[in-house]
Amino acid sequence: MKHIPEKMRAVILTGHGGIDKLRYVEDYTVPKPNKGEVLVRVSASSVNNTDINTRIAWYADAVTEGVTMSSGESGFGDTIGTSSGWSRSALKFPRIQGADICGEIVAVGDGVSTQTIGTRILADVWIRDSVNPLDRSKIGCVGSECDGGFAEYVVIPFTCAQPIRSSLSDLELASFPCAYTTAENLVSRSRVGADDTVLITGASGGVGSAAIQLCKRRGAAVIGMAGIAKHSMLESIGADALLPRQVDDLAAELVPYTGDGRVDIVLDTVGGSQFGKLIHQLRPEGRYASCGAIAGPIVSFDVRDLIYQDLEFYGGTIPLPHVFKDLVNYIERNEIKPIVAKAYDLEQLPAAQKDFMTKQAVGKIVVKVSR
Amino acid sequence: MKHIPEKMRAVILTGHGGIDKLRYVEDYTVPKPNKGEVLVRVSASSVNNTDINTRIAWYADAVTEGVTMSSGESGFGDTIGTSSGWSRSALKFPRIQGADICGEIVAVGDGVSTQTIGTRILADVWIRDSVNPLDRSKIGCVGSECDGGFAEYVVIPFTCAQPIRSSLSDLELASFPCAYTTAENLVSRSRVGADDTVLITGASGGVGSAAIQLCKRRGAAVIGMAGIAKHSMLESIGADALLPRQVDDLAAELVPYTGDGRVDIVLDTVGGSQFGKLIHQLRPEGRYASCGAIAGPIVSFDVRDLIYQDLEFYGGTIPLPHVFKDLVNYIERNEIKPIVAKAYDLEQLPAAQKDFMTKQAVGKIVVKVSR
Repeated sequence: MKHIPEKMRAVILTGHGGIDKLRYVEDYTVPKPNKGEVLVRVSASSVNNTDINTRIAWYADAVTEGVTMSSGESGFGDTIGTSSGWSRSALKFPRIQGADICGEIVAVGDGVSTQTIGTRILADVWIRDSVNPLDRSKIGCVGSECDGGFAEYVVIPFTCAQPIRSSLSDLELASFPCAYTTAENLVSRSRVGADDTVLITGASGGVGSAAIQLCKRRGAAVIGMAGIAKHSMLESIGADALLPRQVDDLAAELVPYTGDGRVDIVLDTVGGSQFGKLIHQLRPEGRYASCGAIAGPIVSFDVRDLIYQDLEFYGGTIPLPHVFKDLVNYIERNEIKPIVAKAYDLEQLPAAQKDFMTKQAVGKIVVKVSR
Repeated sequence: MKHIPEKMRAVILTGHGGIDKLRYVEDYTVPKPNKGEVLVRVSASSVNNTDINTRIAWYADAVTEGVTMSSGESGFGDTIGTSSGWSRSALKFPRIQGADICGEIVAVGDGVSTQTIGTRILADVWIRDSVNPLDRSKIGCVGSECDGGFAEYVVIPFTCAQPIRSSLSDLELASFPCAYTTAENLVSRSRVGADDTVLITGASGGVGSAAIQLCKRRGAAVIGMAGIAKHSMLESIGADALLPRQVDDLAAELVPYTGDGRVDIVLDTVGGSQFGKLIHQLRPEGRYASCGAIAGPIVSFDVRDLIYQDLEFYGGTIPLPHVFKDLVNYIERNEIKPIVAKAYDLEQLPAAQKDFMTKQAVGKIVVKVSR
């Protein structure tokens, strides 16, 4: 059994605000697993929008609080609300963020077999009640409702620790959980199938590039929207056609690829002023699914498109429990591949987030946690 | 066999525009049923928003055409677009409108048994292909893609003519098809169940009052929004609680009835500036379904509500084929009751529509067609 120290390296979030609210420390107390829990030695994590959204309180209750978020090129304003987690509830500080965890079980609490010690695991992003995994009041997100992967050790429920057999490196595996669970949730809710043409916005981001692969895995035709500099990379991971990040006449841009200028499904991570156009280009009985709104959360559209085309819109945050298990299967069968843009050391997390926010990378920025 | 005349009384729509585009005539040629069709002697029809929407071309392609519809107290602007039917395709004129048809089969085309002559029927609003009833390119709406109930005789596919056994009058039966099919489609798509609290906007209208009954039939709790003068009437048909048509603080208004100020489902016929508030008061995993936007089609909302509450939005125009059959069952079992506000003679249709557009009535304005 490996030696477990008393103290560990960690990046802690001390409160809502700017990047200065992230503090790198080397003397944080290593947690102990309680009943049904395991202690994981974290080898790798990655950077996600949700870490930044939570830090700047972007999830705040805009309509109730009367706050409209600003949104610059980076996609993030700095306005701070009062109920600031994704679930509209308040966060506890200090908090160790990091939704992605790849590592190894090094100790167990009561009720978990010691034989699991040494298992290489990927952690489910979503912590659930073991009796009723669908009870939303008891669902939490790793790095938000409990501590996450930006520390050398983390305690998670054993049921979240999914054993994984793969030739991929820990850094590569850490690129999957949050982005791919989110993307597969959208793909699954919007029922992507082999006959569908899917338009993916923000196609070069973590969720967008995941969605390209997960739609291709189902046999769909994929059109991505992303900065032109990233097009060749996105073609190489399977996009059938690519459009710029913003277009004036979306219908006209789609005609060469879809004939009628329309698509069956839109998977959106962008939101903002383009929303109404995306909806208008959906075919009858088309589906729209969204997991983010980096271009701005207040959107408008023509509700006649929803009504008379019998459209469906889906929000995608908490997936059904099978989604993460499916994802691990896809990884083990090499049906999807990691897209790692860059790796940073744990103590460089503020720099990693700044890099992330420039949106220059294609795929994921990962974080080396253990030395 | 009853005598079938050569000519009939009818109200024909001569083109898109004002109420002057409706012309009452007494010498319109009685149509003949082709293969698979029946001739129905129409006893009663009723007034629906769709007749007016089609006449004023409200369904026009606002985003593509760059037209924003105006919307007054009556809910209807007069701007005219180019692709003006509900399905974005052009209408043929002259057209006999009237989505609702109650009457009797008086003649049959090839392939339909003459034994069906004399059958009292209620017509399905949606005409479908007999081979593939789900093929949307072959689905039409009675009174839009083919002639409807504002004439003494109409030809419809035999498969649309649903026999009905009921002690209700023809005028009462004619109040059901369009409004109740639309309402049941919303109720069905949004999966209203006994544990749900449902907020219904425009609750005094044809679809709204239908939705109240159809939600109560499933055991849900119903909160209606309507002009205060109509509240006692809506209570009498089953609404558990009532709010004014527009409220400043929807959350606060809902608290006395729902504790948390939220609801599970919103069924909306109104749209307009209230849209974002309705969405914001949905509980996690809540559903929004809409079939109309009488207060204006361009709406805005906070897409974070959709995303982080895992909401679902449904447009409701063309129902699955079982919906109308279900409805006829509910009528025959007296599980729902007709709400007839007023009756007009066929030649008074323009006056009936003017009355309808003042939105003073609770329930349906019906039209006596046969003398």
